[in-house]
Amino acid sequence: MIKTDILIIGAGPTGLFAVFEAGLLQLKCHLIDALPQPGGQCAEIYPKKPIYDIPGFPEVLAGELVDNLMEQIKPFQPGFTLGERAETIEKLEDGSFLVTTNKGTKHQAPIVAIAGGLGSFEPRKPLMKNLSDYEDNGVAYMIKEPEIYRGKKVLIAGGGDSALDWSIFLTEVADEVTLVHRRNEFRGALDSVEKVQELKNQGKIHLITPAEVVTLHGEGKLEKVTVRKTDSDEEVDVVVDNFIPLFGLSPKLGPIADWGLEIEKNAIKVNNALDYQTNIPGIYAIGDVNTYPGKLKLILCGFHEATLMCQSAYQRIHPDKKYVMKYTTVGGVIGFDGSKKEAPKAVVKAID
Amino acid sequence: MIKTDILIIGAGPTGLFAVFEAGLLQLKCHLIDALPQPGGQCAEIYPKKPIYDIPGFPEVLAGELVDNLMEQIKPFQPGFTLGERAETIEKLEDGSFLVTTNKGTKHQAPIVAIAGGLGSFEPRKPLMKNLSDYEDNGVAYMIKEPEIYRGKKVLIAGGGDSALDWSIFLTEVADEVTLVHRRNEFRGALDSVEKVQELKNQGKIHLITPAEVVTLHGEGKLEKVTVRKTDSDEEVDVVVDNFIPLFGLSPKLGPIADWGLEIEKNAIKVNNALDYQTNIPGIYAIGDVNTYPGKLKLILCGFHEATLMCQSAYQRIHPDKKYVMKYTTVGGVIGFDGSKKEAPKAVVKAID
Repeated sequence: MIKTDILIIGAGPTGLFAVFEAGLLQLKCHLIDALPQPGGQCAEIYPKKPIYDIPGFPEVLAGELVDNLMEQIKPFQPGFTLGERAETIEKLEDGSFLVTTNKGTKHQAPIVAIAGGLGSFEPRKPLMKNLSDYEDNGVAYMIKEPEIYRGKKVLIAGGGDSALDWSIFLTEVADEVTLVHRRNEFRGALDSVEKVQELKNQGKIHLITPAEVVTLHGEGKLEKVTVRKTDSDEEVDVVVDNFIPLFGLSPKLGPIADWGLEIEKNAIKVNNALDYQTNIPGIYAIGDVNTYPGKLKLILCGFHEATLMCQSAYQRIHPDKKYVMKYTTVGGVIGFDGSKKEAPKAVVKAID
Repeated sequence: MIKTDILIIGAGPTGLFAVFEAGLLQLKCHLIDALPQPGGQCAEIYPKKPIYDIPGFPEVLAGELVDNLMEQIKPFQPGFTLGERAETIEKLEDGSFLVTTNKGTKHQAPIVAIAGGLGSFEPRKPLMKNLSDYEDNGVAYMIKEPEIYRGKKVLIAGGGDSALDWSIFLTEVADEVTLVHRRNEFRGALDSVEKVQELKNQGKIHLITPAEVVTLHGEGKLEKVTVRKTDSDEEVDVVVDNFIPLFGLSPKLGPIADWGLEIEKNAIKVNNALDYQTNIPGIYAIGDVNTYPGKLKLILCGFHEATLMCQSAYQRIHPDKKYVMKYTTVGGVIGFDGSKKEAPKAVVKAID
């Protein structure tokens, strides 16, 4: 059982920054995210895209923003449950919440802050009848640990940035990389497309286009796939250990939708006039996942919401204490790891 | 008469960022500030202090944050009326506002956004009976254009960072620099104190401590001051062109307090449940100058408030248009100067 002060569901920029603001209040955080790494969409979907509207950054790559936030919250040692989806919530007798993931990991906290963005990102799956038989036995829809493909024969399907970039990456790890796409044209960053062309010319990526994977074969685990060329209907068998269709991720509010929270337009209604709390006391919703009059789904708004949420959470956890805000410029940042950052102090010194 | 879409009172971080958000909505901004440069407190009071709670910056100097914001808003070509204090507001027949500064500069806009921080920074003045006779004739409380001191004999009074840093700076510009402080001890950054000691040893700063300026002399303009040594009561006359007491700035809400806005605890009440509008439609208050339940006087909150304010301002200015938000990651930033920043576009390209 993982216990913490604020359990944050979603490790995107808003959830990450909440760790910082909670830390200033001496509250500990733990984050759950369905994706294999922190950063949400910024890390998974568009790490190399520039964002122009983060205050103080004329331009910052989404991935850089996540790196900066991870650096900023490091003193507050957040815990992470990654690659798991928050599935159920239960209110315990002492008023705290018990949140269990799809893999059974249990978390307990007096405060739950849902920072789930557009929802948990679920992969779009190809329509094939025996696909689910091979899930976790050769078929995956997301690459969580590239090392598990070392020395393997991997077939990637897809025509976008993910398919291109992972094909390139896996040529350094896997024994064989095959890339299958239903068109001859790929859609992605120019340098990615050119790199795949180069690796194909060098024989390091085996390209089959226009084509699609139609049948999976293997006893207990994936051993072979049948690929159909869509221009000629010719079929070829390819011996593979892994089939990874990268057809994009689509966000779904998912199980959270059944937690008894007031939902409007696929988002969680909150009290924006005060603290971004939901209709269930102790459960807050911050960032893109919430809605209120005038709501804008912007990262910078999530930062503000996270900050006000932490103040309210502090009052719930410590009803008898009065928190007096100290500016970081004055009080510095004192980490749970014993680290301390603070402005150089003024000296009082005679000049003679 | 200066005309603009959003007239922003206060050029601190919140006011500056409002220019960016307004620009994304194709609204032009003009800023008025009593200080001689943009950046508010961050630029005037603590430019070299680190701030730790700006999201995405594990540490940023206040002055750097201002520089970054100025760079970020550059494409939207804001206008500035600096060194002047917004004094009066008048509602015109067409529903727009006319704001006049203490120097008589007039500004007209359909929207006024007060981003005045803790108020306009007014200097603490020494208690001397004929002080005001010499204001603008040798006496100043803030250094706006250092060049006007070139070749002059300048006497600075004070014992903090401002007095230390300007004394150091003016040794390169003025003909003579005298520094007077009522104690022997100065309070400031160690390197500033040490530098003043060094310049004093080199004879470049004439130091008189513990002492205070007691009388000003001169016909029409300042010509001489009497300095009394407080340990011996001995008095000396110093021939000077300028007397600059730097005793600190203290923020005052000032004339804004008489604009008919609802004030609570020296701050302007706003509707935080919607758009940070005040009790006067068309006038908003954002950043440290406003108050609402749960308000935190943090820069990051000002950024959020500025953003929601701009959306509401857009609807007031264009009641018939429906604004559809475009992410900068997708739509880029198109400046009023014709500049365009955008993410590299994906290509669609065959691999053969």
